[in-house]
Amino acid sequence: MQVSFSAEEIIGIVGPKATRGRAGQSITGIASLEGAGAGDMSFLGNAKYRPQVPACRASVILLPVDYADDPPEGQMHLLVESPSVALAQICARLESMLWPRPAPGIHASAVIASGARIAATATIGPLCVVESGAEVGERCHLQAQVFVGRGARVGDDSWLMPGAIVAAECELGRRVRLQPGVVVGSDGFGYEFAGGRHQKVPQVGNVVVGDDVEIGANSTLDRARFSRTVVGEGSKIDNLVQIAHNVVIGRHCILCAQVGISGSVTIGDYAVLGGQAGVAGHITIGQGAKIGGGAAVTAPVAPGAYVNGSPAMPYMLERRIAVLKQRLPDLFRRVDAIEERLEKSSAS
Amino acid sequence: MQVSFSAEEIIGIVGPKATRGRAGQSITGIASLEGAGAGDMSFLGNAKYRPQVPACRASVILLPVDYADDPPEGQMHLLVESPSVALAQICARLESMLWPRPAPGIHASAVIASGARIAATATIGPLCVVESGAEVGERCHLQAQVFVGRGARVGDDSWLMPGAIVAAECELGRRVRLQPGVVVGSDGFGYEFAGGRHQKVPQVGNVVVGDDVEIGANSTLDRARFSRTVVGEGSKIDNLVQIAHNVVIGRHCILCAQVGISGSVTIGDYAVLGGQAGVAGHITIGQGAKIGGGAAVTAPVAPGAYVNGSPAMPYMLERRIAVLKQRLPDLFRRVDAIEERLEKSSAS
Amino acid sequence: MQVSFSAEEIIGIVGPKATRGRAGQSITGIASLEGAGAGDMSFLGNAKYRPQVPACRASVILLPVDYADDPPEGQMHLLVESPSVALAQICARLESMLWPRPAPGIHASAVIASGARIAATATIGPLCVVESGAEVGERCHLQAQVFVGRGARVGDDSWLMPGAIVAAECELGRRVRLQPGVVVGSDGFGYEFAGGRHQKVPQVGNVVVGDDVEIGANSTLDRARFSRTVVGEGSKIDNLVQIAHNVVIGRHCILCAQVGISGSVTIGDYAVLGGQAGVAGHITIGQGAKIGGGAAVTAPVAPGAYVNGSPAMPYMLERRIAVLKQRLPDLFRRVDAIEERLEKSSAS
Repeated sequence: MQVSFSAEEIIGIVGPKATRGRAGQSITGIASLEGAGAGDMSFLGNAKYRPQVPACRASVILLPVDYADDPPEGQMHLLVESPSVALAQICARLESMLWPRPAPGIHASAVIASGARIAATATIGPLCVVESGAEVGERCHLQAQVFVGRGARVGDDSWLMPGAIVAAECELGRRVRLQPGVVVGSDGFGYEFAGGRHQKVPQVGNVVVGDDVEIGANSTLDRARFSRTVVGEGSKIDNLVQIAHNVVIGRHCILCAQVGISGSVTIGDYAVLGGQAGVAGHITIGQGAKIGGGAAVTAPVAPGAYVNGSPAMPYMLERRIAVLKQRLPDLFRRVDAIEERLEKSSAS
Repeated sequence: MQVSFSAEEIIGIVGPKATRGRAGQSITGIASLEGAGAGDMSFLGNAKYRPQVPACRASVILLPVDYADDPPEGQMHLLVESPSVALAQICARLESMLWPRPAPGIHASAVIASGARIAATATIGPLCVVESGAEVGERCHLQAQVFVGRGARVGDDSWLMPGAIVAAECELGRRVRLQPGVVVGSDGFGYEFAGGRHQKVPQVGNVVVGDDVEIGANSTLDRARFSRTVVGEGSKIDNLVQIAHNVVIGRHCILCAQVGISGSVTIGDYAVLGGQAGVAGHITIGQGAKIGGGAAVTAPVAPGAYVNGSPAMPYMLERRIAVLKQRLPDLFRRVDAIEERLEKSSAS
Repeated sequence: MQVSFSAEEIIGIVGPKATRGRAGQSITGIASLEGAGAGDMSFLGNAKYRPQVPACRASVILLPVDYADDPPEGQMHLLVESPSVALAQICARLESMLWPRPAPGIHASAVIASGARIAATATIGPLCVVESGAEVGERCHLQAQVFVGRGARVGDDSWLMPGAIVAAECELGRRVRLQPGVVVGSDGFGYEFAGGRHQKVPQVGNVVVGDDVEIGANSTLDRARFSRTVVGEGSKIDNLVQIAHNVVIGRHCILCAQVGISGSVTIGDYAVLGGQAGVAGHITIGQGAKIGGGAAVTAPVAPGAYVNGSPAMPYMLERRIAVLKQRLPDLFRRVDAIEERLEKSSAS
């Protein structure tokens, strides 16, 4: 990174409610409160780190509006509604400076089928393949070695990173981001057992991904047996996540890394699934439900519920059982002692 | 999908034992009993949905031969041995209509080493790489951006989807399907610790995949340290599955998504492993054994056994313990009460 | 494999402390003690297999220096410091014979940006992409369909296998091996929730991978939010592993397949994580700690500690609880019996 912001530029980006002090120098880095030095910008993203602010040596600190103390010499405080959002605004600016959208056009090495429709404002990078009948929208960026299959559609302003794959007939909304190696539209895992063999049930549906969805590296989304596998608008999926056929994920959900969703599961809007959680087939998870990391969901989860453990149960119960489990050796000893005592008393 | 079948065409494909009623219109979609409308075909794949049949509005329904009721006006019942198999037959026809095999030939952008042998009937899509000494069999389809390494062999009628990788010396049988991003033949994970460092033990074996095997998107199969990692004929592997070096998987096994098999494990024919299950190294799983989703197998599993949990134990025991675990808070209270009572009685 | 070694060649490679007997023929394979026949080399890698040595039919056996018995006719014993290391030496020789480094040069189909710096001794295989500002060091091998992003650096003698991706600004040390499909530098999973939507927090840091690191197939390493995600020198990462943003992994660690490390975790040198283990965010794992397979680490782990289970606890405690858990049905019965007895005695 060779990017530098003046304090004034940062003020221009985040529009603080108030400022205090003066930055001793321009900003060339971003760092945590503990790690920052002169020339860095830092931020208070979580109230529990507030005690670290006075000792922070950053030249600029983003702080919540209720932060009262004055900065030391050479430091500027920017008081904002949300330091995290302000940081994101600065990062977005940084991102656009660091990796600006390339010029529109199709790289000479890309292989575009004659029947494909590529918007004039789109950028198709080296060694991409776009098959016939596929559509790539305005200002899309297919970075390199991307595959877009027959009849697939990529909505405006989407960014498909190296090695991303969108198989035939699948549809991406607008502003979708596929991290490297994502597979959208692999076959669902469906077989019928007959004659001592697993007979393939062809998977002839597709995957429909809503606007503003982001999917993490090497995650896999299977096409429906028939009909659609769906990821709702604004949902964010981390790396190495498995979404089976006919799953319907609501809007604005969070699926952390290595989550596995079995076939025909339905997940309500705003649900959050922790890393490595698994959901058994055909289960419904209610709106706003929260699934702990590593949880194994084997029964429906009510809207707003918070479950954890394997098999998943209400969060507080699971916490309590986790504690009691560690006291099992003691419990066995206690029951041994009771039995011994009763034996003695009956013998006497 | 812009495909339409007449009722007669469907009868021609599935060859029903009997038919009842008449379809009001031709079929342009496939849907579940609950979701189907006029113009759809539906099916009774699982007996528990039988009560939904009378209210189903599909134009054609595939039903088991013992289904007795007559259809309403405008609906046709096709009575078949197995509605699921009949559905698969229709889907297979659909699949061949929707994505027919492309014409044989090698795309101009593919990079084929001089020493590679490609059957004249094979199709090598854009931007594939086939290294020297590799063999690609009759009617194979390497879709796009596929890699087939030095000395590797791909059996007749196999389909390697975009981004699939078959590393050097590995062998695929006939009618193998690799979903996008599959890696066959990455190095096994083998090191010897010496001099404070992990010394690489080169992995010089290969992977041998039997006929009719299908492997899901982004799954990884490591080559043997020496000798072979094996997947037996007809086995089906879902997405994001890890198969370590020297594993031997039998015939007609099912490995669901995100399963992890450690090195030198042996799995018997017809075994089924649920999603996210893990198997520790050097373990043998017997023929027809069933491993529950998320189970952690740390000891041998007998043929036909059904195990579950972490560590895996007999299914019924695990179910019982899962229930009792939830009653632990109560059990602790009961033991507290007993002790209190005994204290009182001894004090009195 | 069509490679053959004479006994003398093997002696030349491993430099044994002593030899006993004579090999009846040259060596054309490597096999386990049980599986070996004439023409094979075998080895005693683990003391527990010592009883298998007398019956082994290999032509050459690598044995520890304290092995006392004489070989039968036609078999040679090579007594070495470490049979495992000796085996690795032979495998390394085998590996270099089986897949020798290709000649330096850039394949005509590779797409190299004008501003990229490729060492003259490097080999860039077919259909690779190297973006502007990227550096590829001496004797590197980018095998095929590899992507190296803008400003990324690949250290000397590294080997990037087919489909490996190194995103913009990321850095690999010397002698790094990326197995097929590895993604280094996908975006970290960071969002701020505001206005009912998850706002992307751009990830503008990078990933820094030390010397002699190996990363398994389809594993994913996210770039830092700002600053660096780090993998220390000599660490080995297996397949399908997830490393989140801002993680710092020490030197000479082992991460087995499907491990998931959440954001901002710190792992000390020489730590070992078993397959499918998960580590919650912001946790510190001490130097030399050992995490059992499938363990869910939700609290800091002390240096040298060995933890297991979900949630992770000291290994011996977890083993004991695993046993007691299976005795829960019995414990419930015992407490029922005690209560019944007390009821009776109070009634009488």
